[in-house]
Amino acid sequence: MDEEKVFKDPVHQYIYVQDRLIWNLIDTKEFQRLRRIRQLGTTYFTFHGAEHSRFSHSLGVYEITRKIISRFERNQYIEWPKEERLISLVAALLHDVGHGPFSHSIEKVLNTNHEEWSKSLILGETEINSFLRQIDSTFPSRVVDVINKKYEKPIVMDLISSQLDADRMDYLLRDAYYTGVNYGFYDLERILRVLRPYQGRLVVKESGMHSVEDYLMSRYQMYWQVYFHPVTRSGEILLRKIFLRAKNLFEEGYTFSTLFPPIVRLFQGQLHVDDYLILDEPMFFTLFYFWSQEKDQILADLTERFLHRRLFQYIDFNPNDQSKLEAILEFFHKNNIDPTYYLELDSPSDLSYDIYRPGDKKEMSPIYLLNRQGETIEISTKSDIIAVITGKRKTEHKIFFPEDLLKEKSILSQFQLLTR
Amino acid sequence: MDEEKVFKDPVHQYIYVQDRLIWNLIDTKEFQRLRRIRQLGTTYFTFHGAEHSRFSHSLGVYEITRKIISRFERNQYIEWPKEERLISLVAALLHDVGHGPFSHSIEKVLNTNHEEWSKSLILGETEINSFLRQIDSTFPSRVVDVINKKYEKPIVMDLISSQLDADRMDYLLRDAYYTGVNYGFYDLERILRVLRPYQGRLVVKESGMHSVEDYLMSRYQMYWQVYFHPVTRSGEILLRKIFLRAKNLFEEGYTFSTLFPPIVRLFQGQLHVDDYLILDEPMFFTLFYFWSQEKDQILADLTERFLHRRLFQYIDFNPNDQSKLEAILEFFHKNNIDPTYYLELDSPSDLSYDIYRPGDKKEMSPIYLLNRQGETIEISTKSDIIAVITGKRKTEHKIFFPEDLLKEKSILSQFQLLTR
Amino acid sequence: MDEEKVFKDPVHQYIYVQDRLIWNLIDTKEFQRLRRIRQLGTTYFTFHGAEHSRFSHSLGVYEITRKIISRFERNQYIEWPKEERLISLVAALLHDVGHGPFSHSIEKVLNTNHEEWSKSLILGETEINSFLRQIDSTFPSRVVDVINKKYEKPIVMDLISSQLDADRMDYLLRDAYYTGVNYGFYDLERILRVLRPYQGRLVVKESGMHSVEDYLMSRYQMYWQVYFHPVTRSGEILLRKIFLRAKNLFEEGYTFSTLFPPIVRLFQGQLHVDDYLILDEPMFFTLFYFWSQEKDQILADLTERFLHRRLFQYIDFNPNDQSKLEAILEFFHKNNIDPTYYLELDSPSDLSYDIYRPGDKKEMSPIYLLNRQGETIEISTKSDIIAVITGKRKTEHKIFFPEDLLKEKSILSQFQLLTR
Amino acid sequence: MDEEKVFKDPVHQYIYVQDRLIWNLIDTKEFQRLRRIRQLGTTYFTFHGAEHSRFSHSLGVYEITRKIISRFERNQYIEWPKEERLISLVAALLHDVGHGPFSHSIEKVLNTNHEEWSKSLILGETEINSFLRQIDSTFPSRVVDVINKKYEKPIVMDLISSQLDADRMDYLLRDAYYTGVNYGFYDLERILRVLRPYQGRLVVKESGMHSVEDYLMSRYQMYWQVYFHPVTRSGEILLRKIFLRAKNLFEEGYTFSTLFPPIVRLFQGQLHVDDYLILDEPMFFTLFYFWSQEKDQILADLTERFLHRRLFQYIDFNPNDQSKLEAILEFFHKNNIDPTYYLELDSPSDLSYDIYRPGDKKEMSPIYLLNRQGETIEISTKSDIIAVITGKRKTEHKIFFPEDLLKEKSILSQFQLLTR
Repeated sequence: MDEEKVFKDPVHQYIYVQDRLIWNLIDTKEFQRLRRIRQLGTTYFTFHGAEHSRFSHSLGVYEITRKIISRFERNQYIEWPKEERLISLVAALLHDVGHGPFSHSIEKVLNTNHEEWSKSLILGETEINSFLRQIDSTFPSRVVDVINKKYEKPIVMDLISSQLDADRMDYLLRDAYYTGVNYGFYDLERILRVLRPYQGRLVVKESGMHSVEDYLMSRYQMYWQVYFHPVTRSGEILLRKIFLRAKNLFEEGYTFSTLFPPIVRLFQGQLHVDDYLILDEPMFFTLFYFWSQEKDQILADLTERFLHRRLFQYIDFNPNDQSKLEAILEFFHKNNIDPTYYLELDSPSDLSYDIYRPGDKKEMSPIYLLNRQGETIEISTKSDIIAVITGKRKTEHKIFFPEDLLKEKSILSQFQLLTR
Repeated sequence: MDEEKVFKDPVHQYIYVQDRLIWNLIDTKEFQRLRRIRQLGTTYFTFHGAEHSRFSHSLGVYEITRKIISRFERNQYIEWPKEERLISLVAALLHDVGHGPFSHSIEKVLNTNHEEWSKSLILGETEINSFLRQIDSTFPSRVVDVINKKYEKPIVMDLISSQLDADRMDYLLRDAYYTGVNYGFYDLERILRVLRPYQGRLVVKESGMHSVEDYLMSRYQMYWQVYFHPVTRSGEILLRKIFLRAKNLFEEGYTFSTLFPPIVRLFQGQLHVDDYLILDEPMFFTLFYFWSQEKDQILADLTERFLHRRLFQYIDFNPNDQSKLEAILEFFHKNNIDPTYYLELDSPSDLSYDIYRPGDKKEMSPIYLLNRQGETIEISTKSDIIAVITGKRKTEHKIFFPEDLLKEKSILSQFQLLTR
Repeated sequence: MDEEKVFKDPVHQYIYVQDRLIWNLIDTKEFQRLRRIRQLGTTYFTFHGAEHSRFSHSLGVYEITRKIISRFERNQYIEWPKEERLISLVAALLHDVGHGPFSHSIEKVLNTNHEEWSKSLILGETEINSFLRQIDSTFPSRVVDVINKKYEKPIVMDLISSQLDADRMDYLLRDAYYTGVNYGFYDLERILRVLRPYQGRLVVKESGMHSVEDYLMSRYQMYWQVYFHPVTRSGEILLRKIFLRAKNLFEEGYTFSTLFPPIVRLFQGQLHVDDYLILDEPMFFTLFYFWSQEKDQILADLTERFLHRRLFQYIDFNPNDQSKLEAILEFFHKNNIDPTYYLELDSPSDLSYDIYRPGDKKEMSPIYLLNRQGETIEISTKSDIIAVITGKRKTEHKIFFPEDLLKEKSILSQFQLLTR
Repeated sequence: MDEEKVFKDPVHQYIYVQDRLIWNLIDTKEFQRLRRIRQLGTTYFTFHGAEHSRFSHSLGVYEITRKIISRFERNQYIEWPKEERLISLVAALLHDVGHGPFSHSIEKVLNTNHEEWSKSLILGETEINSFLRQIDSTFPSRVVDVINKKYEKPIVMDLISSQLDADRMDYLLRDAYYTGVNYGFYDLERILRVLRPYQGRLVVKESGMHSVEDYLMSRYQMYWQVYFHPVTRSGEILLRKIFLRAKNLFEEGYTFSTLFPPIVRLFQGQLHVDDYLILDEPMFFTLFYFWSQEKDQILADLTERFLHRRLFQYIDFNPNDQSKLEAILEFFHKNNIDPTYYLELDSPSDLSYDIYRPGDKKEMSPIYLLNRQGETIEISTKSDIIAVITGKRKTEHKIFFPEDLLKEKSILSQFQLLTR
C-alpha cells in the first residue's frame, strides 16, 4: 500500500492498516457481516451500552497483534520468526469470522460450531478465500490451522489464542469500555512491553509479573461482573428455549407461518456457506417478530418475551437442597407449564468461557515468566494472587423461570427473588 | 419506589431512576424497541464503534435532565417551577420514542414524521400511554406538547429541546464516546453548574460563557467531523435510493418476492401504531437481504451494496461549474444508468441538523447569559467565537455515484475521487 | 454560606464546599501549609508525575466523606447519626494536617509523630483552633479524638480511618492519577453506592463484594508497584541517612555553617507549633543545598546525592545468606566507608503502610458485608481473592548502597544490580 | 543503548528513551533541577492540582518530538533531513532548562532572561555541556541556536518552537491533565498523523485542518480559563511586588536579617552558572519565610501574604474611566499605603504568552496546510474559526489590591469585587 490507512477506534485510538491484504479482507462481504453480530450477545439486556459488534473486536485483535509484532521487529528480537508476520495478522483479524448470531448461547441447541464455520468461510468459495489465495494456494489452510490451534509454530497461536493473547487483551478492554464498568481495564501498553519471543513461545519478562496479575484479575472480575451476570444469562436461556421449541416444532412437522429458507436449512443441518452471510442478528430478530405471532403458544410467548425484554427471573439454588426446585416443578405440573421451555438450572462455570486453569486439557499451556537467568517459570508459582485463582472452578447455581407465570405467588414466599 | 435503581452507563457512569413511573416507562415494549434503532444511523460505516442505540441516548437525556432539576431543587432556586419535575423527566426520556430506523435519512422518501409517531405512541393504545394516564388523564397530551414544543412553560422545553438542551448535551458526549473522536467532549459538570432558571427560562450565568463556547465548538466539530462525514452521507444516500426504488416499484405494481406486511402498509401510508413496534433496523436489514435477491436489478444491486458496504464514491462539486456533473450524466445516459438511483448531489447544510442560528424560524430562541446585574444578554454579542459561527450556513457540495459503474474510467481522470 | 463553592479537582472533577467552617479551615495558614508537603514523599524520583501535595489529597478525602454522608442523608438512612456530619467533614479535611515533610521517612530518626502534631495544631493557638471553637469549645478536642481513633462513635472513624475509608479511597485514585499507573483505579461510585450505616458501623451491601475485591486488589498493586518501589525506598533511605548524620553531628557538637533556628529546635526536641508552619519541604531542600557545602564530607555527600538524584543502588538479599552483605561490609571496612550512613537493609513490609490484616492490633476492625438477612459477615470469609491477601505479610529484602563508592567493582560481579 | 528505557508518564503513558545521550542529559544536575521549578508558577493557587514541574513537561516535549520524527522515519518521508534527529530531540528536552523559579512572573523585575540562562547552561562548564561535547565540539552551540531560533534549518525550529510545536502540544495536554480542566484536550495522535515535512518546513495535510482548529481552540480556552485566570495573576503580582520591594531595599542599603548569597548576586546582576542550580522554588519559599520576619513592614507583609495565600483581590477596570482607580489611590494616599507595592493594573494580553497572531514580529511564521495539489495555504484563509481568533488581541483590564487594607469599606460600595 502506498500509505498506511487508519480506522478510528474508541479503544485503541487508531487501527493501523499497512498491508493491502488486510485492507481487502476487511472489505469482504464475509467480514462486513460481523457488523451485524454483537460481540456480547444478550449482555446489552444488562448493560445497555454493550451494543458493539464482532467487527470492532476483530479489528482490535488485529491491532494488538500488529503492535506486538511491530515491537518485536523494532527491537530486532532474533527469536521472532519474521516470516510469520502476515499469517499472524490475518489469523488475528479472522479468528471470529465463523461466529453466528448469539453463537455462544445457541450452538449446542442448533448443533453448529463456529470453528467449523470459520474453516468453511476461509476455505470455501468466498471473497476471503480468493484474497488469501493471492498470497499462496496453501495460505488459506494455514490460516485455518492457526485459528484451530494446529499450526506448526506455537508462538503464532500464542499471539491469537492463549491465556494471554490479543483476543482476550482486546475484549477485556473493549467490553469494559462499552459496558461502562471499570473492571476490565489493565495496562495494555505495559503488557506489550514485557512480552518476548523465547524458544518458540511467547513469554513475559519477570519484571512484568504484576501487570499480568492485574490483567488476570481483570478477567476474573469481568467474568463474574459482566459475562456471567444473571440477567445476561437469563437472556441466553430465553434464546436457547426459543430455538429448542422451534426445532422441536420443526421436527414434529409443525407448519410455521413464517420460516425463512436459511432457517429451514439450519434446522435440517444443511446450512451452506452462502446462507451464513445472512444468518445474522437482524434475521433472528425479524424471525422472532414473526414467531411472536405464531399460533404455537409457547413459541409466541418466548419470542415476545425476548423482543420486549420480559426475561425469566432467578433464585439461588443449592444443589444439595432440591426443595425449591421441587416446589416449582410441582406448581408447573399442576398448572400445565412445561419446564422444558420454562425452567433452567444454570451453573455458569460449565460454560466454555474459561478462567485460567493450567492442566485443563482444552486449555492452552500456562503463562511463563522469563527471569534474568533465562529460565522460564510458570506464573502461578511466583504469584500468590494468581495461585489462588488457578484451577479453581467457581460455580454459581441458579434457577431461572418466569416469575409472572406463578399465579399462586405463595410459592415464592419460600425463597427470595434475586432480580434487581 | 423503595430505593433508587441504577443503570450502568459508559457516559454518565450511572443513570439514576427514582420514580416508579420512569422505571415502568423504560420497561414498556415501545421504549425497549429503541434498542433496535441505532442512534447514528449509517455512521457506523465510517466510525465502526458508533453502534449505540437510541435506547442508550434516551436514558442519557433523561439523566442529564434529572441532574439539572436535582441541582435546582438542592439549591432551592425559587424560579424553578417544582411541579414540572415529572413531566420534564418523562419528556426527556420519551423525546425520541417516535424515531423509526434511519429516520433522518428516509422520512422524506417515505413521507413519515417521527414527531407525529411520538404523538401516536404516547396518545395511542400503548403501554406508555397506560402508565402515563395513571398520573392523570391529561398527562399524555401534556408530554406530547413538550416534545412538540407547544407546552405552556418554555423552561420545560428549554430543558429538552433548545440550543443548550439535555438532548444535545447527551448526544455530543455519547457520540464522541462511541465513535472514539475527541471533538464532542466538553465540561458537562461545569455547564450544569452555570444553568439557572430565570424569568421562566433557562439561562447561563455569565461566568460560564467560556464553557458554553467550548460546548458550541464541540457541536461545530462534531457536525463536520462526524455527522456530515461523506462516508456517512454516502450510506444515507444509498438508503434513500433503496426506498425510492422500492416505493416506485410498489407504485408501478411490481410483484415483490418478499414484502413484509408492515412494509406494505408503510408504502400505502397506512402504518398503524402496532406496526411501529416491529419497524426496526433488524426488519430493514432482513428485507434488504431478500431484496438483494429480487429480480429487479436496481433494487437487488442497491441493497447488496448496502449490506456489504459497497458505498457510492464522491467528488467535490462547485455549483457554479456543472462540467463534472455533465460528464457523469452523459456517461450514465450513454450506458443506460439511471441517475435517479445512482447519482446524488449532496449539500449537507440542507439537512435538518442545525447549527446555532438565531433568527432561523424553526430554531429555538438563543442562549442567554445572566449577568451580575440580573440582565440577560444573547451570548453571541459577548463571545467572538460564537459570533463567528452564528447564522453562518456552511455548505459542502459533493456528487455521489458508484465509481465501479464507470467502466470507462477515463472519465475520472478529470477529477479526483475523495474517498479515503 | 449563601451558595456552594467549588474547587476544580482532577480526580473528583469538583470539590464542593457547602459549609462556611470548611471554607474557613481551608484558608488557614496551617492548612495552606499542606501545599508545601508532597503527598508521596520521594516517589517523584520514580514516577516523575507524582508531584501532588497533601493539600490536594486532604480536599479529596473531605469530598469523598461529603459524598458518602450526602448519600446517607438523601436516602434517609435512619442508622446514620445526622449530628455527626460536620465533625466527620472536619476530621476528613484535617486528618493529615500534622504531617511534616517526608514524615513517613524521617519521623523515627527525628523522634516526631504526626498524630501528636495534628493534636497540637488543632488544640493549640492556631487559626484552625479558633475557627473550630466557634462551633463549640469542645469541638477541637472531639476532632482530635476522631483523628486519633478515640471518638465515641465508631462509624465516624470508619469513614476517616478504616480498611475502607475516605482516606484510602482518595489516595489510591489520586496517586494512580498523578503517577500515571493504572493500578489504583477502582469503581469509586459503585463503592459509595454499596456503603451503609448499620448498627453503629459502616458496612458494605453484600452485592458490592466484588467491587471491594477490586478496591483491595488496587491497594495491593499500588503498594508493590508504587509505594514500595525500590527507587522510592532508596530516596527515603537517603533522607534518613542525611538526618541521622546531621543529628549525630549536632549531638557531637559539630558547628554547622548553616542551621536554621527551627531545625535546631527540631534536633533539640523542642519544636513548637509556630515552627511547624515553616517546617516544609522547601525548607528541607534549601537546607540540603547549604549542607551540601558543609565541611563534613558525609553530610555534604549525602545531601548532594539527594539534590541531584544520585541514589543508592540495590540488590536482592536473602536473610538466610549473609555472604553478599559480608562482602560489602568487608569492602567498606577496608576502604573506611561508614555503613551507618552508606548501607541499609530494607524490608518494606516493616513499614507502617498497612495491607489488609484483620487481627493485627494496630489495625481497625475488618470490612463487613451486610447480607439480605441483615447479618454481617467478615469479607474474607466470602471472597477467595481477599482471603489470599488477608494477614499475609509479604516482604522483600534488599540491600541499598552507593554503587559508585565501590571502586573495586569486582565485588559486584558476585551479584546483580537491580537498578533499572 | 542496549535496550530502550521508559519513564511512566500520566500524559503520554510512557516516555521512550532510545539514545544514551538523552539518558545522560536527564541525569545531569542541571536537568534534575527542573524538578524543583513548577511548570505553572502560581497557578496552583487557583487550580490546586497544578503542582507539576518543568521536568515532567520537558520529558513530554521530548517525547512528542520523538514521536513525530519516528513517524517521519517509518514513513520514509524524503523531505525529512534524517541527520537532524538527535539535535531535535536534545533541543526539545533542553528548551526550558534555563527557566528559573516563577520566571514568567519575575524576569522583568530581576532583569534576568531564561533564554540567556539556557545558553549559559548549555555552553558553560556544566554536566550538560560535557555530555553534548561528546557528540562534537560544535554540538552545544548548535543546540543553543535551535532554542534561540537561529538554527539554519527552519524545520527543526518548527518542531520545537512554532505555532504548532511539541512544546505547546505537550503543555496544553499536561496543564489540562493536572489542573483537571477539560479545555486543553485535543486529538494529539490525529495531529501527529497529519504533520508532514515539506520544502524545509513542517506543514499540515489539508484534511487535518479541523484537528488544528480544535487544537487552536484548546489554546484559546486554556489562556482565558487557566493561564490568565485572575487568581493566578494575583499570585504573580504578589511575587513581583515582593521582589520589587526586596530589590529596592537592597539598593537603598537596607540590612536584611536573612539574605542567601545567591540572592545577593542575583540583586547585583552577578549570578553565575553554579548559583543557578540552587535558584529554585524551595529557595524562594524559604527566603519568603525569613523575609516574613523582617523588620521592614512591607516586605514582611507581602511575603506573609504569599506564603498563606492571602492574595490581592481584583475588580474590573475600564481604561476610559479612571474613577475607580482614583478612589483607591486617594484612599491609599490618605492612609499612607504605597501603591507601588499594593496596587497593580493588569491587562493580560501584554504578557509574552502568545495567541496565534501571524504578522507579529516576535512570532514564528503561520501554520500552513498542504493540499492535494502540493500547494501550501495559510490556515486562517481556509478556516473561519481560526480566522476569527487570528491577530485579535483580546485584553482584560483589572485592578488588583488587598481588599483587607481598605478599612473604610465604603469605598468598595462603588464597585463589585470579583473574587470568587
